[in-house]
Amino acid sequence: SSVASKTLLKVGDVLRETRVFSSEDIKAYAEVSHDWNPLHFDPESARKAGFENRLVHGMLVSSMFPRIISAHFPGAVYVSQSLHFRSPVYIGDEILGLVQAIALRETKNKYIVKFSTKCFKNHNELVVIDGEATAILPNLDMLQKSPSE
Amino acid sequence: SSVASKTLLKVGDVLRETRVFSSEDIKAYAEVSHDWNPLHFDPESARKAGFENRLVHGMLVSSMFPRIISAHFPGAVYVSQSLHFRSPVYIGDEILGLVQAIALRETKNKYIVKFSTKCFKNHNELVVIDGEATAILPNLDMLQKSPSE
Repeated sequence: SSVASKTLLKVGDVLRETRVFSSEDIKAYAEVSHDWNPLHFDPESARKAGFENRLVHGMLVSSMFPRIISAHFPGAVYVSQSLHFRSPVYIGDEILGLVQAIALRETKNKYIVKFSTKCFKNHNELVVIDGEATAILPNLDMLQKSPSE
Repeated sequence: SSVASKTLLKVGDVLRETRVFSSEDIKAYAEVSHDWNPLHFDPESARKAGFENRLVHGMLVSSMFPRIISAHFPGAVYVSQSLHFRSPVYIGDEILGLVQAIALRETKNKYIVKFSTKCFKNHNELVVIDGEATAILPNLDMLQKSPSE
């Protein structure tokens, strides 16, 4: 099983994870969010809006950011997130999530960290989502291997 | 069944929806997002971080915004969303989502609309999430009753 070795997070460090979204993911996300926008289910409606095919929900792709942060820092408290949906994500696209620490300060023995948060596709050539997040981390111990699936 | 009457969206109009999140919602969201942060599952870990109990994922509560926009404007394309997580949301809290059009312009027979997006709890006294969203609407026909569940 994966050995969790600990290093301390510092500014410049990059956390990354890849994921491919399926039509089951879209359906499961719609069921829990109640977001049944036809762009995610009806290829014709997506094409009418100028896309190649039906889209993965932007907020589902964006969920990679808090996922990546909390997988490395269990107990992290999410403070803010900005999101710019630059390009569509389709079923089967391999998405790379990159979360980079860009500012860090300690306060009352907790750490407020600002991250740049980006998702890419097409072998990291095309930015699909970018933005920034701020989180309060209980400590800087960065679990190398994410403890949960 | 609900009668969908149409009015045209104008600046100042407010779209609203309420929702109560359950522990099943938290589990379903974690399964599709892979976000298993203990704050959402382990009351002890949440209390250690200063909360009363385990939290609903901020991104799950935030999903009310694109849900509300697309329920009234099927085919809406989400362009951006900023999110500030101001207060925790717990299982059983009744959350009111308010999405207000604050700017609107037409371009190439589509409509770019900026919305202020807020979620409240405790009978609308406490802001839990606030931010702004921008979406491209195919038209301004506002379905009064959301067509989907």
